Amino acid sequence: MKRLRIGVCGLGRIGSLHARNVASNPWEAELVSVADPIQKLAKDVAAKFGARPYFDPSLMISSEDLDGVIICTPTPMHASHVELAADENVSIFLEKPIALTMKDAERIVSKVRHAHAKCMIGFNRRSDASYEKAKRAIKKGKIGKTILVKTCARDPQPPPDDYIKRSGGIFVDECIHDLDVALWLMDRKVKRVSAIGKTLVYPQFAKYGDYDNAVAILEFGDGGLGIIEGSRTSNYGYDLRTEVLGTKGSVSVDNWSGESTRLFTSQGGVSDPGPWFLQRFADSYKRELERFYNYIRRGIISPVPVEDGREALRVALAATQSAKKHQSVRLAN
Amino acid sequence: MKRLRIGVCGLGRIGSLHARNVASNPWEAELVSVADPIQKLAKDVAAKFGARPYFDPSLMISSEDLDGVIICTPTPMHASHVELAADENVSIFLEKPIALTMKDAERIVSKVRHAHAKCMIGFNRRSDASYEKAKRAIKKGKIGKTILVKTCARDPQPPPDDYIKRSGGIFVDECIHDLDVALWLMDRKVKRVSAIGKTLVYPQFAKYGDYDNAVAILEFGDGGLGIIEGSRTSNYGYDLRTEVLGTKGSVSVDNWSGESTRLFTSQGGVSDPGPWFLQRFADSYKRELERFYNYIRRGIISPVPVEDGREALRVALAATQSAKKHQSVRLAN
Amino acid sequence: MKRLRIGVCGLGRIGSLHARNVASNPWEAELVSVADPIQKLAKDVAAKFGARPYFDPSLMISSEDLDGVIICTPTPMHASHVELAADENVSIFLEKPIALTMKDAERIVSKVRHAHAKCMIGFNRRSDASYEKAKRAIKKGKIGKTILVKTCARDPQPPPDDYIKRSGGIFVDECIHDLDVALWLMDRKVKRVSAIGKTLVYPQFAKYGDYDNAVAILEFGDGGLGIIEGSRTSNYGYDLRTEVLGTKGSVSVDNWSGESTRLFTSQGGVSDPGPWFLQRFADSYKRELERFYNYIRRGIISPVPVEDGREALRVALAATQSAKKHQSVRLAN
Amino acid sequence: MKRLRIGVCGLGRIGSLHARNVASNPWEAELVSVADPIQKLAKDVAAKFGARPYFDPSLMISSEDLDGVIICTPTPMHASHVELAADENVSIFLEKPIALTMKDAERIVSKVRHAHAKCMIGFNRRSDASYEKAKRAIKKGKIGKTILVKTCARDPQPPPDDYIKRSGGIFVDECIHDLDVALWLMDRKVKRVSAIGKTLVYPQFAKYGDYDNAVAILEFGDGGLGIIEGSRTSNYGYDLRTEVLGTKGSVSVDNWSGESTRLFTSQGGVSDPGPWFLQRFADSYKRELERFYNYIRRGIISPVPVEDGREALRVALAATQSAKKHQSVRLAN
Repeated sequence: MKRLRIGVCGLGRIGSLHARNVASNPWEAELVSVADPIQKLAKDVAAKFGARPYFDPSLMISSEDLDGVIICTPTPMHASHVELAADENVSIFLEKPIALTMKDAERIVSKVRHAHAKCMIGFNRRSDASYEKAKRAIKKGKIGKTILVKTCARDPQPPPDDYIKRSGGIFVDECIHDLDVALWLMDRKVKRVSAIGKTLVYPQFAKYGDYDNAVAILEFGDGGLGIIEGSRTSNYGYDLRTEVLGTKGSVSVDNWSGESTRLFTSQGGVSDPGPWFLQRFADSYKRELERFYNYIRRGIISPVPVEDGREALRVALAATQSAKKHQSVRLAN
Repeated sequence: MKRLRIGVCGLGRIGSLHARNVASNPWEAELVSVADPIQKLAKDVAAKFGARPYFDPSLMISSEDLDGVIICTPTPMHASHVELAADENVSIFLEKPIALTMKDAERIVSKVRHAHAKCMIGFNRRSDASYEKAKRAIKKGKIGKTILVKTCARDPQPPPDDYIKRSGGIFVDECIHDLDVALWLMDRKVKRVSAIGKTLVYPQFAKYGDYDNAVAILEFGDGGLGIIEGSRTSNYGYDLRTEVLGTKGSVSVDNWSGESTRLFTSQGGVSDPGPWFLQRFADSYKRELERFYNYIRRGIISPVPVEDGREALRVALAATQSAKKHQSVRLAN
Repeated sequence: MKRLRIGVCGLGRIGSLHARNVASNPWEAELVSVADPIQKLAKDVAAKFGARPYFDPSLMISSEDLDGVIICTPTPMHASHVELAADENVSIFLEKPIALTMKDAERIVSKVRHAHAKCMIGFNRRSDASYEKAKRAIKKGKIGKTILVKTCARDPQPPPDDYIKRSGGIFVDECIHDLDVALWLMDRKVKRVSAIGKTLVYPQFAKYGDYDNAVAILEFGDGGLGIIEGSRTSNYGYDLRTEVLGTKGSVSVDNWSGESTRLFTSQGGVSDPGPWFLQRFADSYKRELERFYNYIRRGIISPVPVEDGREALRVALAATQSAKKHQSVRLAN
Repeated sequence: MKRLRIGVCGLGRIGSLHARNVASNPWEAELVSVADPIQKLAKDVAAKFGARPYFDPSLMISSEDLDGVIICTPTPMHASHVELAADENVSIFLEKPIALTMKDAERIVSKVRHAHAKCMIGFNRRSDASYEKAKRAIKKGKIGKTILVKTCARDPQPPPDDYIKRSGGIFVDECIHDLDVALWLMDRKVKRVSAIGKTLVYPQFAKYGDYDNAVAILEFGDGGLGIIEGSRTSNYGYDLRTEVLGTKGSVSVDNWSGESTRLFTSQGGVSDPGPWFLQRFADSYKRELERFYNYIRRGIISPVPVEDGREALRVALAATQSAKKHQSVRLAN
């Protein structure tokens, strides 16, 4: 089996992780090239994993003969990099969120459709064993018809100011994963959103019109309900939970400790805080790449279509608007 | 120590339970009398526990020389029974909800104040060991300043149609406990509510303008957030959970199984559904009576003041209105 | 239904608990009398629950017209009190252990048989909801044929010296419950025991030839295996667990917290230590009395026969002997 | 940094896993060669990971210029392969158990010492995050002085007959991991063992003088206690648990599900069986190789010395003897 030739654009936290994951599977894929405008970073990553460094992602996409490109560049650049890759006939793995505006999201969806490009959104939770099991249980009818989805995502500390400024806000940046999971598990559209956002701990969020804690309730098209909760202030560690209630039961993905050690003393039982998302989802990042390889080789339907990336963004923007205007927002369908 | 002379008005599910709990503590209290318009019921309960039967609660309150009366009559009758007991100088234990309308609630608060009556609302969760421990942890500052309260209450089956019709709706009947817990744990007022209600499983709820599933988000006066979730359709059993997130951590009261047996077979690990609320809260019903006795004997401040009953009702009515009007409701303070 | 006339002999920790439980169920039973050589204790308990005090248990048994007597006197006195009650034709509830010697145990079994007396041993775990559920699962074949039983019993602190001296040792005093549970769940006899005992924390145990930590392995008659573990030094609180492995699965009774509150901070998740056995088994003490009442009224077969009390003692004495002699002990059957 | 040149001898289940783990870390190590007498297997693994195939492990060790060799050949061949590698000055990673006889174990220890060879035993649990955390807690004194260690290892199905025949028996093959963990966590020697073994489900074990279920109790040199439990008949899945009780508390490594999905239906809560050891310990197999690489590059003290492999075998053989002779076995120290 021919090894797939893969390039990675954007070597931030996630881009570097993808580069390592490509390199650690040498019998399936070859990390041909990496690109980042920070030259030292591009050179270091390239040297470590035996790839060619580029400083300009566009140049890399057009110069190398790649089978697939993993796009982790800043979100506002997604659209032009997707267009370039589609023109070069390279399969695309696009990190979340798809875009910061509906206009950019439409541009991406449009290009992918017209170019018949292969494109997969990096919603990695869909490749997590626990989430997959929940999805499977729902599909098999184990909980009957779905009634309510609840998600909770709490980050242990805020991102850097510079990141906050350009993140698109808590719903578009952090909760976009939860919104995607909610839409995916409920398998229908959202028709109304009410949201509240507050800055209670870190004033920098207020400075950029963002919130450090936020909640939203969703009304799905045929009567289902949703609760989204996001926090940037979880002093006790990363905490991620999802639950779906149905007419016959409930399925949940609880917070994950990753370990099974417990200590009991006269102060009671103590378990360590759960791990940060990079460890929590380490396997899912590997599995989504395996899906991407498989999709490049044999795929017809995208494991995570661009339309799903657009839909999650649409609800995230509606929630943002609801929180800002203190009223519920109706989504046209 | 003189035994307290106690009467119980209204012998439905909760009234009968209170009667039994009074009788099982014969060294503290004496079950003097019970009253219910269903004559056979009044006679049977009276015979079983050695009390005098009445068919008219008002007659019982005015005829017997009671130290305390436990009022479990239908909610619309609460106000007049409270007034009568206050006039007779009998200490009052009043089941939740305090009333179905703010007008009745004000009437009760006003009477209790003017008559200097002792009155305690039957929010039994405040006497539950797990909830008390959560409250204590918050008070001690273990989780810092509170940011968010989340509650989830799921009943395994709907109440009878006749009950639904007069219950006041899911927020006033079922979620009133959760609203009280939320207000009690956050220790501040609510200033805005957005709610959605749906009837997804049992059409009888829609028939009476009620919902079988509902969610609400709360905005507290100084920035705190709240999520309330109620369901009447929990096929997998009674499920009750509460969580408070603070700046330094989180405290939760999880669903309670009451047992510690687990079965593991080739199908996986299996634990039985949790118990129905009567078993879940059996101890709390005993402990709230002990508090009531103590309050009668020595009390100055009500363990659960009528004002708290009124405040929970106010938020419940606002949530009901929000769900009906599809818009957020602002509460005047 | 006529109330049963009950007396309690011996008002130590467990005797006093039984007295209170009899009194708290006045529609089923009447606490007629209590007896204890400590006169103040007998008078106080009698006054609190409205019973007649005696200072001599034998006098109480022979003077009162009782339906049932609860015998909680010191273990060496069990045999003579059982004989007296049997002669008086009073139904007997006998606290564990049945006796400290096989000779006394035989005397009790013999008397009960010849007098056709009703006698039930106070192995309260058999009336605990979690243990009952485990037993039921095994009986229904949920785990197939039983292979192995494991028990763990850890007390948070040692009993007073005076108690240690006369307790019969860790296997006869503490582990007798576990041995009974093991025999009951496996439903067959033990044919060989190997045990080790050590005094590692509290020297007073060594002083009286006892141990503060001990383990034993059991070989059941038809090939089943057993592990018994007992400790008096559990600094982190009372801990009690039982597990049975079978050919088709496993059933376990885990340590029981009694509460569902959890705290998460930057130090991790914290849950309080489990409760002491009086709270852990509060319900079982009530339920075993209900079984005793039912047995008095209608019973033919004892809920916990004296023969079972004798069998647990036989294994406990064999374990003690094995630990002392550093070799395995074979039990004749 | 120069990549380490690694070879793998023996491509059974564990050998193949190690080969893959070496290959997936190309920036640290190079999988130079693999050897197995099954020629197709050697060729396939070599082709997949870009290594040179050998059919004779000895030839591979002497022909290639390796930095390290991973020895997973059948246990009776360990001694001669270790000797050869030591003579060739290649660092050695030796799979468990070190040997089937004390004579072979001594031969290995002796060679490693005299040749000043680097040798590490493949007790992978010592590289598992949960076990490491338990060890750390004990070292830091969190549970005080250790009193008791308990281990439980249950395999979901028996190995093939051919494997049973040559495995050395349940204590030497399966429980050797638990014995090593017990010795490592208690950090002292065992002076007496009593064991019972039974064949209750699969007659093939009896045929080869082995057991499908076994228990042992250990007496440590200075008074500590141990309980070892092994099963080959766990119909409900792989189950692995370890616990250490100390004077100040207890630390446990519970069975690990690897996932956080739970399903609740009217039949109760259901969680899937835990994963098989290859998934349970996937990370530990990677981390022990990283330790091996580090030891090759910089190491002075072996992460898992050959003496520890010998000590676990000594106790395993004593347990086997105790089970066969129905009496406790004293170990000379």
